Amino acid sequence: MTRPHIHTIHHHHFGWDNSLTPTHRAESGDTLAFTIQDASGGQLNEHSTSADVPNFDFSLTNPVNGPVFIEGAEPGDVLSIEILDFQESAWGWTGILPGFGLLAADFPEPWLHISHYDRSSVKFTPEITLPTRPFTGTIGVAPAEPGPHSVVPPRRVGGNLDIRDLTRGAKLYLPVEVEGALFSVGDTHACQGDGEVCGTAVETAMTVQLKFGLLKGANFSAPRFEVPGSSMAPIDGKGYYATTGLGPDLYAASQDAIRAMIDHLGREYRLGPELAYALCSVAVDLKISEIVDAPNWLVSAYLPRGIFR
Amino acid sequence: MTRPHIHTIHHHHFGWDNSLTPTHRAESGDTLAFTIQDASGGQLNEHSTSADVPNFDFSLTNPVNGPVFIEGAEPGDVLSIEILDFQESAWGWTGILPGFGLLAADFPEPWLHISHYDRSSVKFTPEITLPTRPFTGTIGVAPAEPGPHSVVPPRRVGGNLDIRDLTRGAKLYLPVEVEGALFSVGDTHACQGDGEVCGTAVETAMTVQLKFGLLKGANFSAPRFEVPGSSMAPIDGKGYYATTGLGPDLYAASQDAIRAMIDHLGREYRLGPELAYALCSVAVDLKISEIVDAPNWLVSAYLPRGIFR
Repeated sequence: MTRPHIHTIHHHHFGWDNSLTPTHRAESGDTLAFTIQDASGGQLNEHSTSADVPNFDFSLTNPVNGPVFIEGAEPGDVLSIEILDFQESAWGWTGILPGFGLLAADFPEPWLHISHYDRSSVKFTPEITLPTRPFTGTIGVAPAEPGPHSVVPPRRVGGNLDIRDLTRGAKLYLPVEVEGALFSVGDTHACQGDGEVCGTAVETAMTVQLKFGLLKGANFSAPRFEVPGSSMAPIDGKGYYATTGLGPDLYAASQDAIRAMIDHLGREYRLGPELAYALCSVAVDLKISEIVDAPNWLVSAYLPRGIFR
Repeated sequence: MTRPHIHTIHHHHFGWDNSLTPTHRAESGDTLAFTIQDASGGQLNEHSTSADVPNFDFSLTNPVNGPVFIEGAEPGDVLSIEILDFQESAWGWTGILPGFGLLAADFPEPWLHISHYDRSSVKFTPEITLPTRPFTGTIGVAPAEPGPHSVVPPRRVGGNLDIRDLTRGAKLYLPVEVEGALFSVGDTHACQGDGEVCGTAVETAMTVQLKFGLLKGANFSAPRFEVPGSSMAPIDGKGYYATTGLGPDLYAASQDAIRAMIDHLGREYRLGPELAYALCSVAVDLKISEIVDAPNWLVSAYLPRGIFR
């Protein structure tokens, strides 16, 4: 994928900080490649098991490649990033990390699952195959606020967005807060559902090719993005089974919807709770069906039926 | 649509109450038709304007047809409702009702918009055409708790679910709390986005044909549903433009995402704020992109680009 004239960024850092020295300078219209480690920062391999999770050093997780200084980018501008292509690796991990995830209280034990995949599909289990939809979970620019900032939460300048649709052909728009934008990217995923409910997707190393542009003075309040047509078609054919949660709190409603989906996956497909929870994270989409019928909002969790053999 | 052997329910009531006398008795496997008024209960017509909104009598809104006593239904069972077909009318309304909706504070003035539609498409404006995707906004059974209950909020027994995918071919599952279930249905919509953010969809009278079934002792905690494959395909072709909102509160994040979409619709398509807000309600989908990267969750609002001429 990486053609000779495209520069590749290998250098990574941890967290966001606008005082970091740029590793590369790029102009609007330039394309760069980034060789991205998996979110464990190489601490896990395809033979890792649940027993390896407690040894995790969280200070080494979610490395991001960069920062890249974009010539001419100033506060108030918007940086556009066109997601051109991915060079996938062959395996990825999905983990339940104690204290992390939508149902952290229900799943206190560490758990790890390895999937193998290629450009077209992820073999999650022998019976469950997901379409490969690679994207960069963490993609952002430096915040104006000085000092180091955790990589975990996304911000108005991007970061750990975990937007599943930032795949081949999509275009992301990020508000610029500092001169040169200071762009970094990491946390590549082979596939994920909307919500990433257990806290991890199919986490995997990839090389990604990105093309930069600038919208001078566009002043967006938060990230925006464009998604190309019908990329979900292959998974839609057999329709969806959906569970719901409802009440005055969307977070609790989301928890209830996922708990009901775990119940469904146990009843219908005999999946154990950990595998079901992880499957929700990589394949089930959380949608807000209604947010106006006070006092109860309704969240639906959509399971694509086409993933089962 | 209504074949001679299918009984049609015309009788309606307001709110939920398990002491209401059933208007009809049905068995598992039976199909019934329901002639449903629009959510204004006939107070608006295709010549109504914003000036008619303040005269609205809210005690007459959201009538539901029924209740139907389902033979053999008992607490702990699940009532299945297969959505067979709709006989659409020709026009619908979308309104901003003061004090109601996700951005009630931003839009204090009454506003009304009339659309004409047929079985295939809704002419929202001369430049904006939406696929007709009819569904029943309010569909439920009686709660166990005695006394009258407002029709506005959905509950675990269903009600004002406003799930846009409960269209032709879908199947809804509702927990039964009282003997005979006491099923009612109303609030038909010609189309809606996930969220129904301004509080109304394309509100319209329709006749709907439903087939009932029972899952004895299935004990679901909340509604579930099945959606047939690829019903969204026609609108997906040109992809989506998405805005985001993020922070520790999903409700506030949803507000921010919709405010950003209203900004986008103004910049790109010159829509006024009220029309843009109403378009979000009938065509834009709210998704929870991530709900695990503490402390900031991310909500995305997806606009299908294929609706613009």
